Amino acid sequence: MTAPSFSFRVTHTDGHARRGVMTTAHGAIETPAFMPVGTQGAVKAITHRDLEGLGAEIILGNTYHLYLRPGDALIARQGGLHRFIGWPRPILTDSGGYQIFSLSSRRTITDEGAHFRSHLDGSAHLLTPEKAADIQAHLGSDIAMVLDECVAYPCAMEESADAMRRTLDWARRSRDRLLELRSSAVDGVTVTNQGQAQFGIVQGGIHLPLREASAAGTVALGFDGYAIGGLSVGEPTDVMYDIVARTTACLPAQQPRYLMGTGTPADLVESVARGVDLFDCVLPTRNARNGQLFTAGGRINIKNARYGEDQRPLDRDCACYTCRTFSRAYLRHLFLAGEIAAATLNTLHNLNFYLDTMRGIRDAIAFGRFESFRLAFHQRWSRQAVDS
Amino acid sequence: MTAPSFSFRVTHTDGHARRGVMTTAHGAIETPAFMPVGTQGAVKAITHRDLEGLGAEIILGNTYHLYLRPGDALIARQGGLHRFIGWPRPILTDSGGYQIFSLSSRRTITDEGAHFRSHLDGSAHLLTPEKAADIQAHLGSDIAMVLDECVAYPCAMEESADAMRRTLDWARRSRDRLLELRSSAVDGVTVTNQGQAQFGIVQGGIHLPLREASAAGTVALGFDGYAIGGLSVGEPTDVMYDIVARTTACLPAQQPRYLMGTGTPADLVESVARGVDLFDCVLPTRNARNGQLFTAGGRINIKNARYGEDQRPLDRDCACYTCRTFSRAYLRHLFLAGEIAAATLNTLHNLNFYLDTMRGIRDAIAFGRFESFRLAFHQRWSRQAVDS
Repeated sequence: MTAPSFSFRVTHTDGHARRGVMTTAHGAIETPAFMPVGTQGAVKAITHRDLEGLGAEIILGNTYHLYLRPGDALIARQGGLHRFIGWPRPILTDSGGYQIFSLSSRRTITDEGAHFRSHLDGSAHLLTPEKAADIQAHLGSDIAMVLDECVAYPCAMEESADAMRRTLDWARRSRDRLLELRSSAVDGVTVTNQGQAQFGIVQGGIHLPLREASAAGTVALGFDGYAIGGLSVGEPTDVMYDIVARTTACLPAQQPRYLMGTGTPADLVESVARGVDLFDCVLPTRNARNGQLFTAGGRINIKNARYGEDQRPLDRDCACYTCRTFSRAYLRHLFLAGEIAAATLNTLHNLNFYLDTMRGIRDAIAFGRFESFRLAFHQRWSRQAVDS
Repeated sequence: MTAPSFSFRVTHTDGHARRGVMTTAHGAIETPAFMPVGTQGAVKAITHRDLEGLGAEIILGNTYHLYLRPGDALIARQGGLHRFIGWPRPILTDSGGYQIFSLSSRRTITDEGAHFRSHLDGSAHLLTPEKAADIQAHLGSDIAMVLDECVAYPCAMEESADAMRRTLDWARRSRDRLLELRSSAVDGVTVTNQGQAQFGIVQGGIHLPLREASAAGTVALGFDGYAIGGLSVGEPTDVMYDIVARTTACLPAQQPRYLMGTGTPADLVESVARGVDLFDCVLPTRNARNGQLFTAGGRINIKNARYGEDQRPLDRDCACYTCRTFSRAYLRHLFLAGEIAAATLNTLHNLNFYLDTMRGIRDAIAFGRFESFRLAFHQRWSRQAVDS
């Protein structure tokens, strides 16, 4: 039972790479797409209008953060996350599982759910699959994610298998809850977006048989799309790429595939080559705030003294506001002076680089030249040593 | 000897209030005007394009900060401040005197100049009137200010008199240096803006005879415009207004008058009523970052719990991006969550409020209804209790 306002259509394929259109209750997204991360209802350091100007079609909100502050019930009373934050375009929310894994203290996972303490005030909480679905019903995102259990890397087969089986059980409970919320009133839960879709998450660490079992079990539950979770947690890049390729092979061709929390520009290109349609990552925004900038010729650490009098733009091939207007020397000055504008201008550039990369990928797939795009991308990207 | 590219024309008067156009080497400014403060070459928390979108026609740069970091010689090698920071419109720079007074440690004022230690690294510096002119020649601002001596409030007549006399001596030396820089090459100084104008500064604390002597002496030196310094340092508001009125009366009618470092929206209206043309103040930008917002109905402290679920815009009469797009509830959330966007959106609003106030003032003067504007402004402004 697909969400009525959700659909996905593959319009072009080129090898395993796919171009398509994902339609949600708040509009369409061209895929492959990158979702800037709007953790607490805002993409850090830039405004929504800047984000729209960059061509971002969808952002990600973090359920863990929004649940703790300002609270999902408040957001529901404000009409849902779109209205609350003033962003009328598509939003995907995660389930909160990953932040419980990475941010909270005294976390205990049982079959019931995840017991954890808030990183803000130490208060105790229990997040169950049903509760994660309810919170996301309050938020009213266009795509909700099931609660899953993430394991650290490295992780023994046995532990990975337990987490994978629990994730599958939680996926079933998550799905049941969403269908319940869709079909009938549930006490105490306000569904702010009747068109919310739901994606399942494939887990299984780096163990291929677990991934295959996870994919089969998750697909059998019948979600609107499928995510690959538990990667980009420290495993070697080639292992990650291999797991991605082998997992997408187990997923339905006509539904969207989302690689969670990944990655570098090269990771995006390589994962598209393996059939992924959707990405999110804090790398462009977090690196921007730390002065680490992505350019066609490699990475730039704007703090570096060599840029002190460099009148060139960050990236001469980039058409973003930052590159059209400012020199490396000025950007270095703003960073060293601790000016907020440094975070803003760097974020604008890094996000533009990511979104431009996705535009280039989509065009290349449409014209059947994705392999030459991929080759040229890696050649340019590796031509200049990383400056950090 | 006026700077060739600098001119000022009063186009309308209404009582003592004047509307005019000030033309500089980088374009014209409608007056009365408010200059957002771009301390270190950036107005805090917003981009230049946002600033242009708000209708800001001129910004202020702080010589003290830019001299210490990145250094005026570097800025000169980059072609001057306009090119370095990518702001093509008018810029006024202060002389550094006020920041030495307020920020530096172990400050000693002698007739030669101001000995001080950097607030950044404790390094020792001497700022003389000539050096302040040289630094501003490097920066290439459209309007440079003479070095003056600020005194604290309260300040005895004798001490105020000494500072006033020293300021007058420094004004003469500042003027001589600028004329020297204009007419011939000075070793080690690159003049990056041949059209730079220079304003003198009237000091004298709250002592009327000192203000009159200072004005007469400064005007006799023949500057392009005149500033009133040493106010908004703690004296009662009615004393400040009185000094402003009595000082503008001593200044040439056909030249611009700049009240330095002031003030609240009401201060702007009252000072325009007393013949002031130009203002700068950190209040709108600094308050914005602290969550203190100016609205037509009074001040709002966005941290206040009462705004937690308030779906209204900050100011229903305001057309800024923040008010057109976001609720008080969301702005409160962003502020409490420590999001950079809170600083940006609040700054956009507060600056728009200030610039809108100036637009309203200019229109009112042009239509000969400044007094009714002034009355309505104070009635609206005081209608709602300050919420802080």
